[in-house]
Amino acid sequence: MKNSTDCDKAVKIIPLGGLEQIGMNITAFECEDSIIVVDCGLSFPDDDMLGIDLVIPDVTYLKNNLEKIKGIVITHAHEDHIGSLPYILKDINVPVYATKLTCAVIENKLKEHGLTDKTKRKVCKYGQTITLGCFRVEFIRTNHSIADSAALAIYSPAGTIVHTGDFKIDFTPVFGEPIDLQRFGELGKKGVLAMLCDSTNIFRPGFTMSEKTVGKTFDSIFEENTKSRIIVATFASNVDRVQQIINSAHKYGRKVAIEGRSMVNIVTIATDLGYIHLPDNILIDLESMKDYPDEKVVLITTGSQGEAMAALSRMASSLHKKVTIKPGDTVIFSSSPIPGNEKPISKVINELSMKGANVIYQDAHVSGHACQEEIKLLYTLVKPKYAIPVHGEYRHLIKHAEIVESLGIDKDNIFVLSSGDVLELSEEAGGVTDHVTAASVLVDGLGVGDVGNIVLRDRQILSENGLIVVVVAIEKGTGMVVSGPDIVSRGFVYVREAESLMDEAIEVVWSALDRCYENNITDWGKIKMGIKDELNEYFWKKMKRNPMILPIIVGV
Amino acid sequence: MKNSTDCDKAVKIIPLGGLEQIGMNITAFECEDSIIVVDCGLSFPDDDMLGIDLVIPDVTYLKNNLEKIKGIVITHAHEDHIGSLPYILKDINVPVYATKLTCAVIENKLKEHGLTDKTKRKVCKYGQTITLGCFRVEFIRTNHSIADSAALAIYSPAGTIVHTGDFKIDFTPVFGEPIDLQRFGELGKKGVLAMLCDSTNIFRPGFTMSEKTVGKTFDSIFEENTKSRIIVATFASNVDRVQQIINSAHKYGRKVAIEGRSMVNIVTIATDLGYIHLPDNILIDLESMKDYPDEKVVLITTGSQGEAMAALSRMASSLHKKVTIKPGDTVIFSSSPIPGNEKPISKVINELSMKGANVIYQDAHVSGHACQEEIKLLYTLVKPKYAIPVHGEYRHLIKHAEIVESLGIDKDNIFVLSSGDVLELSEEAGGVTDHVTAASVLVDGLGVGDVGNIVLRDRQILSENGLIVVVVAIEKGTGMVVSGPDIVSRGFVYVREAESLMDEAIEVVWSALDRCYENNITDWGKIKMGIKDELNEYFWKKMKRNPMILPIIVGV
Repeated sequence: MKNSTDCDKAVKIIPLGGLEQIGMNITAFECEDSIIVVDCGLSFPDDDMLGIDLVIPDVTYLKNNLEKIKGIVITHAHEDHIGSLPYILKDINVPVYATKLTCAVIENKLKEHGLTDKTKRKVCKYGQTITLGCFRVEFIRTNHSIADSAALAIYSPAGTIVHTGDFKIDFTPVFGEPIDLQRFGELGKKGVLAMLCDSTNIFRPGFTMSEKTVGKTFDSIFEENTKSRIIVATFASNVDRVQQIINSAHKYGRKVAIEGRSMVNIVTIATDLGYIHLPDNILIDLESMKDYPDEKVVLITTGSQGEAMAALSRMASSLHKKVTIKPGDTVIFSSSPIPGNEKPISKVINELSMKGANVIYQDAHVSGHACQEEIKLLYTLVKPKYAIPVHGEYRHLIKHAEIVESLGIDKDNIFVLSSGDVLELSEEAGGVTDHVTAASVLVDGLGVGDVGNIVLRDRQILSENGLIVVVVAIEKGTGMVVSGPDIVSRGFVYVREAESLMDEAIEVVWSALDRCYENNITDWGKIKMGIKDELNEYFWKKMKRNPMILPIIVGV
Repeated sequence: MKNSTDCDKAVKIIPLGGLEQIGMNITAFECEDSIIVVDCGLSFPDDDMLGIDLVIPDVTYLKNNLEKIKGIVITHAHEDHIGSLPYILKDINVPVYATKLTCAVIENKLKEHGLTDKTKRKVCKYGQTITLGCFRVEFIRTNHSIADSAALAIYSPAGTIVHTGDFKIDFTPVFGEPIDLQRFGELGKKGVLAMLCDSTNIFRPGFTMSEKTVGKTFDSIFEENTKSRIIVATFASNVDRVQQIINSAHKYGRKVAIEGRSMVNIVTIATDLGYIHLPDNILIDLESMKDYPDEKVVLITTGSQGEAMAALSRMASSLHKKVTIKPGDTVIFSSSPIPGNEKPISKVINELSMKGANVIYQDAHVSGHACQEEIKLLYTLVKPKYAIPVHGEYRHLIKHAEIVESLGIDKDNIFVLSSGDVLELSEEAGGVTDHVTAASVLVDGLGVGDVGNIVLRDRQILSENGLIVVVVAIEKGTGMVVSGPDIVSRGFVYVREAESLMDEAIEVVWSALDRCYENNITDWGKIKMGIKDELNEYFWKKMKRNPMILPIIVGV
């Protein structure tokens, strides 16, 4: 590195995904007149983001530096790395670089947003290096739970930066080759300035098992359940997993049907591109599944996270139009719960069990992320001067920092960054020198960013205690009540059982109105406030509840 | 059993807690003219029960058989076994029987509801037998995560029924003696008709570790962190755990402060009754904690489940008035996440970590429930004719049934019950013969059962998309619009940014009104429907959102 590096130069690394939104991977690398963006992920809403569909990053910083941006480089095709592309490309239309399968999944996504014509995409191979302004970026083969994942070697005027992407070390991958450990070693020998490394499994000691071990599990499950229909739920994007289910189906003489929109999409793409190999005539339509005996079919479906609208959940709750769960069905969850999904998954398992299905939800999954020893191995090969733990909650990042320190990297050279931090690194020194805007943008339906804290707080109040609307018509000249007060409630109590409550509430409104009248208060704002306060007090005293109270005065 | 049993007799076992509400333990045992009730638990709401505080069982069946009910017997003082007592005793005021600590916790609970004078409570000892109508009930010593837990031997005219309560086998308990395995063996030798057995850990092979092992973990954490303040969060009710924290504090020369309402309550009760032993002067006020050096204090607090209002969460988010988290603090989660709480717990851990605390949340906890080998041991001692797995979701119960079958109990004698099932058992035969009402009753504030599906559905819609209120004043005689239409929204979009949207929406309302006018529609219901339909369509087309639309017509 030393000979190829200009020692005056520094490179800036700016994570732009919110820290609390661990899914939202997006990082800017800036040097001289060039910026490259690595990954463009989205995140799913927290429990308190009521009604929100998606969360995407705020890329104000990128918009303000539009002329510098040379391209977006994507490590792999998971939603938390590509999901916000359709939103961000609308403002920042630069070329996108990725491996073949990743590009194909992105293409499909852009198509849904009508953006395919507008964006340049370039397929890159492992080992290939592209030039983006003053940066060069090399794609390095890794293993992960989606095929064609890549780490990146980013050559900047200030030195080489390795970004691992999401990775594991799989010595016996289902498709393709093991991670290119030699290249990591070679880069390390030449000198690496910094490494950004996956923290997902930092709390797990040891090594992650090979994806191939899941294939053996499938074989033994198929072996033991020769008389029943088999349904397997897994992540649509895990094409190697789907391949292994197909392999076991083939081995045990079963046909395969595919269900769930994303599963159908990915299987189609992966098959077209040669990432999934289908034995002749193994695939059948969902409709024709009924024409085969149970012991001759396997259904591969979405819904392994208990998502309410996914195919498996609809089968479990008898809402699926084409598949009815029967006693004796074997249902395999080839997945582990993403934190927060434990309860919905349990619900689906219970529902399936009550319908008589034999549900298998342990041991048919391995992680796609590196455990502690794999992470240590990568640091030992790459030996970066600076370490930047990424892809984890804060607690993961600091655990990662602790482990890196144990490998002999200087504590001052390990950076746990917050979203928006500007980390400036050179051979001489490294540190956070600035902070840029990097918030979360909430997407609700077609609205991007039009739901903020006030709206969310209102939704919270409405969701917990419902709503009371009070309507009064007042004659403009005299201030006399000419109609009402009437009360309408929603989400509060079942009104037929609470008629006397509502009658009393109307009395409370009258008394608030009388008080205003007696005190010559004619300002509608003040009258509304009076109604609101008295009703609030009344309902709290009576029921210990705080509905949203919405007084409406109609002037006639 | 044979000689003491009248072979014509049958006993009915009726679980009354909803199956989906696994927390809600309540079971009726009925024979001849007598009913006894075992446990009276509550449950916490599912994610889709918006605004609901608690869930309690529907005890219509008990109310309809009031004259038969001889008493309520409680196995231990956890909320899922005692929580609905204050609600149920209002309708079914019968004596309550339990061990000493359990009675004390119940007393405290009844006091909060002003019910202490109204209910008879009787303290029972291990080995003691009480007579309740045609039943006799013996309390048997067990181990669990709260002291004074009991299993019950219920002697009925039809035979002996063993109810394990929640239990584990702890050969080296912190307080008192190991579970009375001899008595279970003795009962088994004499002949047991049926056993109801805890299923919580049925998926875990092996044995649950002794509570004492946690004490050793505390010792080593205290040993390694001699310079920092130590904060331990755990379940308030786990008095043995609290004792062990106090023991380690004493050993390492630290004072102990207690925080969190339920923690203070339980520590006070347990200390008064001798279940917690406090070394002299070890307890200090929370206020005086600041007068001691950090390395001389331990704070024991609630909040180990990430509950938003609990003390630890308030400390983590800087909302606690008396405790400020500092860099270097050691915070121990002596607990494991109850399913569904993973995300809030992670949030608290991240917040504490960001404040510089060293957070320990692995290995400082053991379960209070039996694993597979313990459950097998109990069946082997008791050898019941009939097995009834309890205390678990459906998937736990059927796994339990599978394990019991492997022990040689006839498959037809294993009953996985649903809430409300009436299981009738005698020496000759056993089966579900009837089904009684046994739903869930939702508690919201002071309202018990006044929130039903319609209200919850409204809250759901409001929470996801907010609300649009449309107000129009119409002259009664002419049908002319004299004021409005006006639109008020809450939880929909931030209105200042959406003024043009609202202007357009008012146009949509006008066109709906015009259409009604042109078609001579004067029925207010139909006019409202028209407004609703057109606005629905408008907002969906424009924003892909479905707010609740509430048209209000004021007649003047």
